Amino acid sequence: MTVSRTKPVRVALLGCGTVGSEVARLLHEQADDLAARVGAPVELAGIAVRRPNRHRDVPADLLTTDVDGLVTDDGVDVVVEVIGGIEPTRTLLLKALSAGRSVVTANKALLAECGAELFAAADASGADLYFEAAVAGAIPLLRPLRESLAGDRITRVMGIVNGTTNYILSAMDATGAAYGETLDEATRLGYAEADPTADVDGYDAASKAAILASLAFHTRVTSADVHREGIAGITAADVAAARALGRTVKLLAICERVTENGEESVSVRVHPAMIPRSHPLAGVGGAFNAVFVEAEAAGQLMFYGQGAGGAPTASAVLGDLVAVARNRVVGGRGPRESAYADLPVRPMGEARTRYHVSLDVADRPGVLAQVAAVFAEHDVSIAAVRQEGRSADASLVIVTHTAPDAALRSTVDKIAGLPIVREVVSVMRVEGAEP
Amino acid sequence: MTVSRTKPVRVALLGCGTVGSEVARLLHEQADDLAARVGAPVELAGIAVRRPNRHRDVPADLLTTDVDGLVTDDGVDVVVEVIGGIEPTRTLLLKALSAGRSVVTANKALLAECGAELFAAADASGADLYFEAAVAGAIPLLRPLRESLAGDRITRVMGIVNGTTNYILSAMDATGAAYGETLDEATRLGYAEADPTADVDGYDAASKAAILASLAFHTRVTSADVHREGIAGITAADVAAARALGRTVKLLAICERVTENGEESVSVRVHPAMIPRSHPLAGVGGAFNAVFVEAEAAGQLMFYGQGAGGAPTASAVLGDLVAVARNRVVGGRGPRESAYADLPVRPMGEARTRYHVSLDVADRPGVLAQVAAVFAEHDVSIAAVRQEGRSADASLVIVTHTAPDAALRSTVDKIAGLPIVREVVSVMRVEGAEP
Repeated sequence: MTVSRTKPVRVALLGCGTVGSEVARLLHEQADDLAARVGAPVELAGIAVRRPNRHRDVPADLLTTDVDGLVTDDGVDVVVEVIGGIEPTRTLLLKALSAGRSVVTANKALLAECGAELFAAADASGADLYFEAAVAGAIPLLRPLRESLAGDRITRVMGIVNGTTNYILSAMDATGAAYGETLDEATRLGYAEADPTADVDGYDAASKAAILASLAFHTRVTSADVHREGIAGITAADVAAARALGRTVKLLAICERVTENGEESVSVRVHPAMIPRSHPLAGVGGAFNAVFVEAEAAGQLMFYGQGAGGAPTASAVLGDLVAVARNRVVGGRGPRESAYADLPVRPMGEARTRYHVSLDVADRPGVLAQVAAVFAEHDVSIAAVRQEGRSADASLVIVTHTAPDAALRSTVDKIAGLPIVREVVSVMRVEGAEP
Repeated sequence: MTVSRTKPVRVALLGCGTVGSEVARLLHEQADDLAARVGAPVELAGIAVRRPNRHRDVPADLLTTDVDGLVTDDGVDVVVEVIGGIEPTRTLLLKALSAGRSVVTANKALLAECGAELFAAADASGADLYFEAAVAGAIPLLRPLRESLAGDRITRVMGIVNGTTNYILSAMDATGAAYGETLDEATRLGYAEADPTADVDGYDAASKAAILASLAFHTRVTSADVHREGIAGITAADVAAARALGRTVKLLAICERVTENGEESVSVRVHPAMIPRSHPLAGVGGAFNAVFVEAEAAGQLMFYGQGAGGAPTASAVLGDLVAVARNRVVGGRGPRESAYADLPVRPMGEARTRYHVSLDVADRPGVLAQVAAVFAEHDVSIAAVRQEGRSADASLVIVTHTAPDAALRSTVDKIAGLPIVREVVSVMRVEGAEP
């Protein structure tokens, strides 16, 4: 194998946890391959960590606690950031980009919150800012959205982008167990973190939705723009109600282009929803991720793979690293951020959704008429009704057609207050084509 | 929307059939979006066709029969080729690349046969040569292989890459009908061409396999290197035998990295195989394409979408066009061909495969012993046997463990000659994990 004698591309690695140590390992093990693909050797200039004595698997002389010094070191060409969090990472990356270092990051929260200033810093100095690993781990998704579909009009991105919640929901579906005990089990097995908030409350998925929507619609969408509902409120009754309808519950990130009265806008949201068991996303189990993309010319596309973990995330980081290193060697630059479309983000109340509502009602004539009247009053049309008598009680299951989310929400609130309604057993949005 | 006042990127379109007319339509309809994404307007300089009077849907002043003149026109920056075939396309593209024009092509046959000289011409002049549309239509697959996974080691690519044969096999599976009548029906419905040879004999899939293997393994693989078997020999009995085993028959393109005795090589082949009905590829029906990619760090990935058709293919062409046009505007260049690994291609006889064999045998004691002895003699180990008596005859179904294809082939030949074997009902390779 011929490796050109070009000046090496020198990499500062910030962080050496699960992902960072895999990046370091692969950089070492695949050095010859990477050099051939980049056109120059790719070398680690240093690894910034908090406690050097905790990292015995990487060469000690590379470790440093002086992260500021490493980022601004003149010998560094590329900064790979796998520390996570907003600060001090934001300040470090702004410093690196301003100094002309290319940056590869897996930091979805930072990008979704402070993406605009990072992109501005990259543009000002002409540096690359790549972040394939920030969404859906090893699945090549951002590059296809940003480049392969650059000649098409993306209309919808819908996917499972958080492995922890998908593991929990898959397990609840399989066992019928309650949310609390399933979360405990997931924590015990290492599928959920000790503090699972970022995952179960949907923050992680919302960051990813913001990044996906920004790329898909050439519009700046931040995490604050994303309507976010987590899975902590999902009950065994919800999961059972879904099952009874031939559906299953998934936490979905949904990014839609909406055209109404000739005006375009985008809707970006993260919430649990029932999808048909026949839907390709229904079969995505455990910690896997999968994302559907719909574009006008391309039609439906699906991307599937491991959404997290050290090695899969490191694969995405290294793919970006090869790209930015190659750009360094040939003197080019990757595609810049593109936010030219600048579409408005619709409030959740205006998103068009479908609802499933499952009620315990008094078993007497006229109940359906009363309930149906409330739907009609809110201009919500009913797609299907199932009524079942059970001694004094009866259950009433309703699935609506699409309507503005606010109208659906008000309908459910009003129905919950009807004297004939003993209990609202389950309310959940419905996605995917009718079964 | 602000469109920069940069000099336009001028495009010569060669061919204006199903794909070409979609490319022309999208270039016109999405002109503003494309200009914003590229950083300069993208304009059609001309469309080369044979019979201008047949193309009423594109502006007449763009049409020309002088394809040579168009390709070498000084005002042309990018050549988009959707004519297909080897000559005169090869000569035209070599001329365009040598003159420094970037080329976007959907021509799998040309790339698989003459890729090396096209890449050499592109390298010599510093032009871009992009070809996402050549494999799996709209599915972003080549860019992920070439760029997203550039930091990983791809070990296997396996997929359904030909829609016509997938339509025919799906229909045979659904109806139990014979190959001939299913092909006739596919032709009538427009899923198969009047001369279906390129599809049903596996030439189209073999070209795509060569392109996939080249990118995945950084090795030059041509269509001549690909072992190719089509679907014309698939019988209703084969499909029924697969069904009885909980499997279905698909035409697969398989590219594998093989390490034996410390030496690496690649195996590239196209042939029908039985896969478990639970395998994700088993559910890919009709004219859809899907490709599994396995890489050491990333693990398993799947890409799914429409593999053919005017609009989907045009989406891939335009994605490439945006990329090469952007490279023109910023003065950079996309990743070059990478064939540094230069791994040897194994002959098919040395590929490790599994076989399913279904026999009609005399129903008397000792039959299995005789048949099993032939397997043992060839060092082929048997994974499963099913024997069923039926009056004077009996059926014997055998699935093997993996063995060199040549050993499996010899075993079957010898078994066919045994006096106790009345008929070899079905022989087919088996792929996918054991059910």
